[in-house]
Formats: sequence, structure tokens, C-alpha cells
Amino acid sequence: MNDERRGNGVPVQTVAAPRSLPAAPLPTVRPSLALLTDRYELTMLQAALADGTAHRHCVFEVFTRRLPPGRRYGVLAGTGRVLEALSAFRFGDAELSYLAGTGVVDDRTLDFLRGYRFTGTVTGYAEGETFFPGSPVLQVEGTFAEAVLLETLVLSILNHDSAVASAASRMTSAAVGRPCLEMGSRRAHEQAAVAAARAAVVAGFAGTSNLEAGFRYGLATIGTAAHAFTLLHDDEEAAFAAQVASAGTGTTLLVDTYDVRRGVERAVAAAGTSLGSVRLDSGDLGTLAVEVRAQLDALGAHGTKIVVSSDLDEYAIAGLAAVPVDSYGVGTSVVTGSGAPTCGMVYKLVARAGADGVLEPVAKASTLKTSQGGRKAAARRLDAEGRAVQEVVLSGPDEAVTAWEPHGAVAGDGELRPLHVPLVTDGAVDSRWVGAYGVENAVLRHQASRSELPRGARRLSHGDPAIPTVEVALAEPVAP
Amino acid sequence: MNDERRGNGVPVQTVAAPRSLPAAPLPTVRPSLALLTDRYELTMLQAALADGTAHRHCVFEVFTRRLPPGRRYGVLAGTGRVLEALSAFRFGDAELSYLAGTGVVDDRTLDFLRGYRFTGTVTGYAEGETFFPGSPVLQVEGTFAEAVLLETLVLSILNHDSAVASAASRMTSAAVGRPCLEMGSRRAHEQAAVAAARAAVVAGFAGTSNLEAGFRYGLATIGTAAHAFTLLHDDEEAAFAAQVASAGTGTTLLVDTYDVRRGVERAVAAAGTSLGSVRLDSGDLGTLAVEVRAQLDALGAHGTKIVVSSDLDEYAIAGLAAVPVDSYGVGTSVVTGSGAPTCGMVYKLVARAGADGVLEPVAKASTLKTSQGGRKAAARRLDAEGRAVQEVVLSGPDEAVTAWEPHGAVAGDGELRPLHVPLVTDGAVDSRWVGAYGVENAVLRHQASRSELPRGARRLSHGDPAIPTVEVALAEPVAP
Repeated sequence: MNDERRGNGVPVQTVAAPRSLPAAPLPTVRPSLALLTDRYELTMLQAALADGTAHRHCVFEVFTRRLPPGRRYGVLAGTGRVLEALSAFRFGDAELSYLAGTGVVDDRTLDFLRGYRFTGTVTGYAEGETFFPGSPVLQVEGTFAEAVLLETLVLSILNHDSAVASAASRMTSAAVGRPCLEMGSRRAHEQAAVAAARAAVVAGFAGTSNLEAGFRYGLATIGTAAHAFTLLHDDEEAAFAAQVASAGTGTTLLVDTYDVRRGVERAVAAAGTSLGSVRLDSGDLGTLAVEVRAQLDALGAHGTKIVVSSDLDEYAIAGLAAVPVDSYGVGTSVVTGSGAPTCGMVYKLVARAGADGVLEPVAKASTLKTSQGGRKAAARRLDAEGRAVQEVVLSGPDEAVTAWEPHGAVAGDGELRPLHVPLVTDGAVDSRWVGAYGVENAVLRHQASRSELPRGARRLSHGDPAIPTVEVALAEPVAP
Repeated sequence: MNDERRGNGVPVQTVAAPRSLPAAPLPTVRPSLALLTDRYELTMLQAALADGTAHRHCVFEVFTRRLPPGRRYGVLAGTGRVLEALSAFRFGDAELSYLAGTGVVDDRTLDFLRGYRFTGTVTGYAEGETFFPGSPVLQVEGTFAEAVLLETLVLSILNHDSAVASAASRMTSAAVGRPCLEMGSRRAHEQAAVAAARAAVVAGFAGTSNLEAGFRYGLATIGTAAHAFTLLHDDEEAAFAAQVASAGTGTTLLVDTYDVRRGVERAVAAAGTSLGSVRLDSGDLGTLAVEVRAQLDALGAHGTKIVVSSDLDEYAIAGLAAVPVDSYGVGTSVVTGSGAPTCGMVYKLVARAGADGVLEPVAKASTLKTSQGGRKAAARRLDAEGRAVQEVVLSGPDEAVTAWEPHGAVAGDGELRPLHVPLVTDGAVDSRWVGAYGVENAVLRHQASRSELPRGARRLSHGDPAIPTVEVALAEPVAP
């Protein structure tokens, strides 16, 4: 290593030697997901194994207390990824050695972890479903030991993916039918980018630039070219000629490296009037798009489309509604949740068996975080036109909640559409919700759920949730 | 699968069969990172391989045009992760089959990708260094083909990790010596959470709850218990007894599940006056901490510390400066960059060889995104007290920039501390910057760099960058 040549002789202070671990890095990703976990889950497990409470039957619920400020609805995403992650949540030799070596847990706990498989049951909203404050979007049921270990992983996935999908849905709504294309990988953690692409598609995006997301989930991938490609060449003509020769006349040429008007001229000269698209990635997109459309038409390139990108969010998309653009490339704002990069979902113990084995509701009782105890059922109340009017959350005796059906006593006015579907039954994952198939089902669910919301739900301005969450107490079991 | 029992008979619309890919999901993470890439990088490569420009020598630079609104400085993080990722950026059979099957690139490009190894050179700011608008924090030099492929991966890592570190540094600064503990995994994508923990530690956090981050990077892990652990038990006394029996009296007991005053009483009753800490996770933390400190002292537990958590950010931490708390558990705000979840860094081609092999500066010339062409050198100008006064970015003839040393003609007043260090030389990674060792070096660099900034840099209020970025043109080569 020659510090002097490339580093200008900078005297960087470094530690003399690695303190504990070897300097050689571990693989960037590892097949086991079991350590994507907060330490306290393992120490709680150890204490509960010691006093016998670890095997108490428990119900945990995932919900959020509020939507991001001003949002009308949230979009649940990531459920399929939670289910996919379960089979990789395994403590192998590497993980157990680390836990043993650092003294995180004792031998009894290590033995438990070595054999860990989730054998419980998971119920929840279908991926793509809209949600509101208090919506019980996921329920995890099993022993305390098996359910507590999933807290961090479940929340990480649902909070991230739902934040992206919730923002993405506002964008596809604002685009009123014009395709939105996800191009934000570079503004997100490299693995989060894959999940963000998937979540954007769940909420209606037409495709993504992220190849890994295409590979894993069968998503449509899209791409144009960067300014670097034009700059690499001796001039814009050479760059466009090279791209057309390689990708055909249907390609998208980036026309704003030097001068947009000259760029459009050269683009049509290179590809002819059958040029697929031009992309604008800087400047006043509204004004430019009008000018470029007129220029393309004057050149006879009536079929050439205009793709715009450059810091678009739902407001910018809405602002371009009357402008002749054909699709939106969205980056930073969609992968960062457009101002709300996480959802605030929590994973709370709502019921557990006592020493007698009977399930009892539990809830934290101190100030400011009061939670309703007990397992919930959930349904969306629809009016005569099939329009959503309430998020109905039902609680009460556990037998009543689990036996509840929409035709029971609390139906009241309008239809009640139940919201919970089975996701994992006794450890077996329902294959409708995973992989590429799961994404397709989530896309359908989101379309149906959003179209059912009141029209005001699509407003971008700040406001209250589109429908109120109403809690209904079930008094006694309804006969099945 | 029994839909009726757990799903309340919900008629969920699903697609009849998977469209293209099998329903069985792929592994959640895969060892190759090569598809963590925007599609256009591969299509640009194909076009450049076809017309011969792919082998032109290029210099790409990473920089940001501006800091998040009001921020005084940024903190570079993720450099070590970029270096670690290089060895996993390989196109194997799975990746190549996907690219061939979906027609993303042609056979010539597939052949190139099969043999892809980065053999170029990377120079940049040391991880942990502070940066400002225009700081050339990373330079990637090699053929267009080998350097363009890294754009998305490099930006994903640096934008994410630097956003977290930049926020974390404000928190550790506001905490004036009290430990900050990273607990935000559940509010971030599951793999981003690991990187966020690492970035927080680079910026001075004392530890993390994330076990994978402990495993991969040798970070200190910390943890207490959740409200679920108390609720699992018949009462708070039983929960505290179980935790103390398992973890010893030095543990941290969470005292706000029911009533804080009673919780503190029971905590000291369970562990005695040698109780390590109590944690407050809700309510008015300032008022509560004063009351709890008095109560602990009255009970004789003078050594018992108080850990606070619950939506802390740098402002809340600063607001607790006069309150008797001992450490801060920080979640959402640190992992989401405290309002700035990405850094806006870009990866721009700044110089490339022409047909004659001579390196020439290049830059996009259209409106609003004007960039300075050519490779840069960079140094921090220090006053007589060693306090930073300017970020100096030097450009000019490439021979002058690469040969530049701080003792040359442009030194002017004060010392110039060069900022670039060698990271990868002809494909060989400098081991000082990777793994656990790399994190330790980054921690040291951040401490030194931050302490060198003007005192106003630590102000949390909105303002201009702590030092101005000054561009200096080098006219001709300085003799080495």
C-alpha cells in the first residue's frame, strides 16, 4: 500500500490492531436472519425459560396508534416478506457461538434457540390492504418463547415496507393512470432498496430500476441511461447512436445533458420518429415537457413519450397532471416514505395464558401509551354503495372474538368486510402470500381496498384518516 | 389450510396462478450483491461494450450538493461497507440466468459480467470524517465498464449510512458525554437496521440493541426488557424477580408498565440497592426522571442509573441535559436520520479518457445541476488553534490534482489537512477500513474531525454549514 501516492501523505490515526475481532470482514449478508433481533428478546427469553413462563400461550398484535401527520390512510406491505423470513430465522453454529462467546444468554437458552422453529399461527390483514389507527394488521400466536423472538424482525419489515407503500399509493393516486416507475435504490440502504421496490409495486408502481427486485419478485424492470453515458462519449450524437444501436429505437434517450432542445433534435435524428421516449431529469419539468412535446410533434415523433424524473413526490406528480408527460420516474421520495420513513407500528402482547392456562387480556397501564388488551377482530364497514365508512375493531372475550363472523349481532348498518386472513397455521406458511405470487395478490388487494375508500381519501392535503376507527365490544360468544 | 376458522371466511381475491415465477420464494438474502443495481447500468455497459467506449479510463466522484436543511455538517459513513461489498459483487449463474432470461443484456455483456472483478482504485475521505457541500468524499477510478456498475451500490450504502451517522453525531453531541444507545432496529428495514447500528456507533453511540451488528462488527450490544415481559407474568414483582434471577442485580428494570412510583419501589425491592438501572419508556421523561432519581436516592439506591427512551431525538436529548438521567436509548430518529433519511449524494463522471487516451474533465452542462468537471483533491484548512475554517476543494489539470500536496503553492494561511486516503488500490482493499477494525478507525476519525470543527458546528438550530466550501483552481502541476 502506497499511502503517499494516492493519499497525499495524510497522517490518518488508526488503532494499532483490531481489539477483538479479526480485521477480515464477515460476509455482507448472511443466510440466517436470527440475529436481526434486539438483544432484550433473548434475555427476556432466558428469564422466562428459567421461571417457566416462556411456555405460556400468548397473542401479540401489531398496530399503529396514528398515521403520519395529515395522512388519510396507510397501506400494509411486507407481510409476504415476513412469511418468507420465517424459514431463515434459524440459530446455527455461527449465531450460537457468537451468543455463547459474548455471554448474551445461558446454555439452556442456547439449547432452546438451536431447535427454534416457529410453530405458531399468524393472522393478519392481506398485504396491500389499507389500514388506519388501531387496525390490528398482524396477530402472532404461540408460546411467549416463540413469539417474542419475532418482534424486531416483524416490525422492521412491516414498518419499512408499509411506510414505502403508503407513500407510493399517494403517488400512483396522484398520477391518475400514468405509470409511476420506482428509481430510488441509490437513496436507500442497498437491501432496503429491494424491499422498497417491491412495496412501491404493491401500491401500484408499474416497475422498478432495481434488478434484484426483478429477480426475487418477478417485477418489471425499467431503465434509460445516465448523464455519465453521454459524457463518456465524444459528443451527444455518438452517445445516442450507441444507445440506439444497442437498445433499438424503442429506447429512452436522456436529453438534458447539454441543451434540451438540441438533445431532442439529436434524439430524433438518431432514432427516427419511432423513438420510444425521451427523459427529462432536471430543470422546470412542467415547462420543459410542454416545449419538448411540441418539438417532438413538430418533428413528426408523435408517438415518442416523455418520461420525467428529478425529485418527484406526490405533490410534484399532481402538479404535472395537466402537462403532456407520459410517466414518472420517482426516486428519493418513494423509498423514504415521502416524509414518513417508518410507520410506528408496535408489537404488543395483548393476551397470555395465566398459570391456569386460561388466556387473559393484558395491557400496559401507565400514562400516554394506553393500549386495549385482548385479541381483536377487524372489519371494514361498507355503505350501500360499497364505500368504506368505518374501521371496526372488535374486542371482548377471546372466544367471542375468535368466533366472530360478519353476520353476527354487531353488524349494524351496511356490510362488514372481515379483514383478517390466515397467514401461518401451526407453523405452515400460506403460499398465496409469498414470492412473486404474493406480490401479485398484494397488488390486487391494494387496488380493491383503495377503490373502496371514500373519495376524500385520495386528497393529498393534510387531514384526518379517511374513515374513523370504531371499537366494538363483543359481550359474549356468538354461536358459530 | 382452514380459511374459515382463522380468517372469518373472508373472500380474498387472489390470482389464479403465478404469472411467471414459481410461488416458492427465493431466499430472503442472497450472497451475490451484483443485482443491487439499477438496470440502466447494465444497458449502458452493453452499449459501451458495443462501441468500444466501455474501456475508456474514467474517474467518478461521489459528493452532495447540499446538506439537509439547517444542518451544520455531515458525517461520512459506510465506506467500510462499500469495501466489504466489493468482493460480493459477482455475477454468478443465478444472476446471469436471470439477466439472460429477461433479455436485459446481450451475450457479449453476459460474458463481461461473468468475469467481472473491480480492479480499479478508490480514494476517499476516511470513514467518520465530517463533510460539507461539494466535498469529494469518494473517487472511483477505472474503466467505464468496471466503475459504472458500482454506482447504485456505492450510493445506496453511503447515502443511507451517512444519513444515520449525520443524525447520530448531533445526538452524541447533544448528550455531552452521557452514553447514547441505538435501539431503532424495529423502525428500519431489517438489514438497514444493522448498518444503522454501525453508523450510529461510528458517530459516537456507545452500543446497540441489534445483535447482528454486534456479531458482524464487534459492537457492544445492550438490552433491558419489554413491557411484554412484565405483562407475561402474574404481576410486576414476579417479572422483576425473574429478570434479576436471570440477569443479576446489575440489570436494567423497566418500571413504567403500571405505575412508575410503584415500579421503582418493586425494582429496588427485587434487586436491592445495587440495582444497575431503571428504564423509563413513556410519559414526561424530564419530570419523571427527577422524581425517580429522588426516589432511588431516598431508597438508598444512589448508584442505580436511569435510562430513558421513547421517541428521543437530538432536541429531546438536549432538553434533558439538566435532568438526572444517565443514558439515552434512541430509536426511530437515529435510524431514520432525524428528518433526513438519505444524503442526496450523487456518483458523477468527472473525467474520462478520450479516443486518444488522454483524461479530460467532463460535466453535465444544462440548468440547475451544474457540476465542476475533473478530479478533485480536498483538504481542510485549519487556523492557528487547529480549528477548521474552510473545506478546500482543488481542481485543475489532472496531473496537478493528483500531484498536489499540502505544502504546495495554494496553502495560504493555516495548515491544510488532506482529506483523501487510499481505500482500494488496483483492486486490493486496504484492510484498515473494513470489518470491526474499520469501525474502530472510523470512530476515532469522527471524534477527531468533529472536535476540530468550529464550536458553532454543534448548534442544533438551523444554520449554514459550519465552514464554507472553497474551490481552488490549480493552474499547473506542482513538482512532487
